[in-house]
Amino acid sequence: MPQLVLLRHGQSQWNLENRFTGWVDVDLTPEGEAQATKGGELIKAEGLAVDRVFTSVLTRAIRTSWLALAAAGQAYVPEVKDWRLNERHYGGLTGLNKAETALKHGEDQVLVWRRSYDVPPPPLAEGGAYDFAGDRRYAGAQLPLTESLKTTLDRVEPYWTAEIAPRLKAGETLLIAAHGNSLRAIVKLLFGLGDEEIIGVEIPTGNPLLIDLDSELKPRSARYLDTGRAQPLPPV
Amino acid sequence: MPQLVLLRHGQSQWNLENRFTGWVDVDLTPEGEAQATKGGELIKAEGLAVDRVFTSVLTRAIRTSWLALAAAGQAYVPEVKDWRLNERHYGGLTGLNKAETALKHGEDQVLVWRRSYDVPPPPLAEGGAYDFAGDRRYAGAQLPLTESLKTTLDRVEPYWTAEIAPRLKAGETLLIAAHGNSLRAIVKLLFGLGDEEIIGVEIPTGNPLLIDLDSELKPRSARYLDTGRAQPLPPV
Repeated sequence: MPQLVLLRHGQSQWNLENRFTGWVDVDLTPEGEAQATKGGELIKAEGLAVDRVFTSVLTRAIRTSWLALAAAGQAYVPEVKDWRLNERHYGGLTGLNKAETALKHGEDQVLVWRRSYDVPPPPLAEGGAYDFAGDRRYAGAQLPLTESLKTTLDRVEPYWTAEIAPRLKAGETLLIAAHGNSLRAIVKLLFGLGDEEIIGVEIPTGNPLLIDLDSELKPRSARYLDTGRAQPLPPV
Repeated sequence: MPQLVLLRHGQSQWNLENRFTGWVDVDLTPEGEAQATKGGELIKAEGLAVDRVFTSVLTRAIRTSWLALAAAGQAYVPEVKDWRLNERHYGGLTGLNKAETALKHGEDQVLVWRRSYDVPPPPLAEGGAYDFAGDRRYAGAQLPLTESLKTTLDRVEPYWTAEIAPRLKAGETLLIAAHGNSLRAIVKLLFGLGDEEIIGVEIPTGNPLLIDLDSELKPRSARYLDTGRAQPLPPV
């Protein structure tokens, strides 16, 4: 039966600095690297044989997948990188310190942007420091200028349906190494959560979430491999 | 115009121990990791934008590609892993210390196996410690039990023709992170070297070999990016 492992990347430099990162290609810190390696050791200890890896085009998720695969002794597994698994695009908040943003826009407004399902921040300034339009990794793509969790899901879902779900239906064991919000989108889709419910789901970093699926991709069970750091999960 | 970068993996644990490695999945040493990172820094300094990476299914080559891509700031580049880019299969010599092998078989015989074009070592013992038949990364493949440089080229060439050459003809810049003998096979094909000539070509580890090609994939120029550690190259 199909198995899916969701792995959220560990600490990045901007997590440390408490800045809105989104699509900025910030690397892992040494602690983030250690979290990824630990994730791979847990995958190995569980005896999982990964058939294929999906990740974003952002270095912190890609390197998380690499460190995890190396630690699991499965570096040879095929890997696909796609921008549709990127973190939520934080629009005009990109690069801003979270405390400064609260001072500028008000704490309540920032909470709305961070915790609502469908309210996107103001769009990114085109031509500014964080305009990704000229980045060759996005060549040919229709890029957002800001995203809510809802619009993040809107671009994750077609990718899930076209590229990931068929692999699972073929019985593969997949690893998706990605970001807080692209993984939330997948959890919402898989567990059929409501718009309010998914807001309350926080996927921990570096702790592989193993989901056993039936042949229709309905979750049969789900658990974190590092049981000491598990978060509550939606019931299956 | 197409560009090709050949990068031979750096020091592995068995290079250190002077053992015949071939298809055994030995990892890089810290020095081998540093060589890969240096290779990536040279690719970055050259201003190369890699469109696609090809590597083997052996960890030391894969991790070389990862470390090089990370150092070049191009982790997001698509990567393909295929056993047909593996190192030459050393058959029954696999795992043996080179000095011990010389004592057992005679120095002259070992030199023939190591330096002839088409004399393979004795075949691997099936069912022994280094039988790769049960390894899932080779599922469905028709595996050799030993290889000469000639039979290494015989399995590299169809892969080159089917998967790599069309990408170059489309104008892509490719990185191939692989092994001494699979890279020799590619150099022989590209430069039209004779069976004796290729034996004398030693590709240095961790030093990217940049080859500019014309639209028919005829080499127009070739040079090592670390000019301090270059080896003589076939004339173009």
